[in-house]
Amino acid sequence: MDGVKIIEIKKSVFESNDKDADALRQELKGKGVFLLNLMSSPGSGKTSTLIRTINLIKDKLRLAVMEADIDSDVDAIKIKEATGVESIQLHTGGMCHLDAEMTRQGLDGLNLKNLDLAILENVGNLVCPAEFDTGSCKNAMILSVPEGDDKPLKYPLMFSICDLVLINKIDVLPYFDFDLERCRRNILNRNPKAQIIPISAKTGEGVDAFAQWLLDEVKNWNTRQ
Amino acid sequence: MDGVKIIEIKKSVFESNDKDADALRQELKGKGVFLLNLMSSPGSGKTSTLIRTINLIKDKLRLAVMEADIDSDVDAIKIKEATGVESIQLHTGGMCHLDAEMTRQGLDGLNLKNLDLAILENVGNLVCPAEFDTGSCKNAMILSVPEGDDKPLKYPLMFSICDLVLINKIDVLPYFDFDLERCRRNILNRNPKAQIIPISAKTGEGVDAFAQWLLDEVKNWNTRQ
Repeated sequence: MDGVKIIEIKKSVFESNDKDADALRQELKGKGVFLLNLMSSPGSGKTSTLIRTINLIKDKLRLAVMEADIDSDVDAIKIKEATGVESIQLHTGGMCHLDAEMTRQGLDGLNLKNLDLAILENVGNLVCPAEFDTGSCKNAMILSVPEGDDKPLKYPLMFSICDLVLINKIDVLPYFDFDLERCRRNILNRNPKAQIIPISAKTGEGVDAFAQWLLDEVKNWNTRQ
Repeated sequence: MDGVKIIEIKKSVFESNDKDADALRQELKGKGVFLLNLMSSPGSGKTSTLIRTINLIKDKLRLAVMEADIDSDVDAIKIKEATGVESIQLHTGGMCHLDAEMTRQGLDGLNLKNLDLAILENVGNLVCPAEFDTGSCKNAMILSVPEGDDKPLKYPLMFSICDLVLINKIDVLPYFDFDLERCRRNILNRNPKAQIIPISAKTGEGVDAFAQWLLDEVKNWNTRQ
């Protein structure tokens, strides 16, 4: 670490929305709806992973998807066309993340009475979404192989707040300098409790394990007091 | 576009820092220093692209690098070790972008009298850094092949504010569903003036064109009134 100057330019601009998030989680508990917050960098494969996964679980529970994006509609349309499940688009109007209030506005657009599971696909961003509790019951993220196995070192908060880390695009492992075991160690150093599932949304490898994780979480949410 | 509900959840939390940025640019002009702001998603290859490029130009001009990251030092150390040029780390303390004031704090850590070129590697994020003028003379970004050729549709502001778009990791084009021509069209639809250079920081392909772009820009900056 010799010879590199480090300048701290910390600012404190994040408001706490923890209270709103806790209230939302409580309401979801009362209604028997499990909310998953799925985060990643742009292009890590959130939408294609969801499509594969939803097609494995859509006959086993009632679900809907909220696709948050700055201003396109392509993801909500893709999900709806490829799975048939209800999918709505949330436009953040330039905002780089969702907070609990914005998530609530999205949930108000769904018929929660008919749902067991709502999935929020957050804005593609490894930084800001980690700062704001959306009110979700669990947080999951995707890290894709081309992004590099050092990302847990550089985006520590995201990895530390996620219950589940999916490592996507394992079909291209031979073409990148990405060490799956080093990546696991980097993730577990940040978050010893993280579950890690390597997948390929392209080939389908590992996606059944994510589907099972979701089914188990929804079941636990509705049986736990 | 049928059948997808769209909910607008716009918020206006961005402060304008345009005045600070203009003042900083003016100062840099007076000092004969060109500031490049380089942005991308996490893992697109900003640091490895810089290392390749700096090694091509470091004998032709005097330069230094500011590596902005949330809290690691790995990039500044990498740059320094691989190129020998001055490299400092800016810790943003959780902030997802740099603004003009934060950039100025970074520049204060460099000896501008001895520089022709300062490069700011912004926080890995395709959203927030686009909102804040850093005071840079030009903005450049990297989109990497694994992220997908649809990113200009989903992150429009970033593509519209960049003078130069580097398309990195073209060495893995055969393994991804990424159409270079479609990507060019998507970029130019957002920003008809954007210059686009396909590169591979891994093999070095195309990096000479980026190096030449930088040399030309630095020269123009110092000769234009």
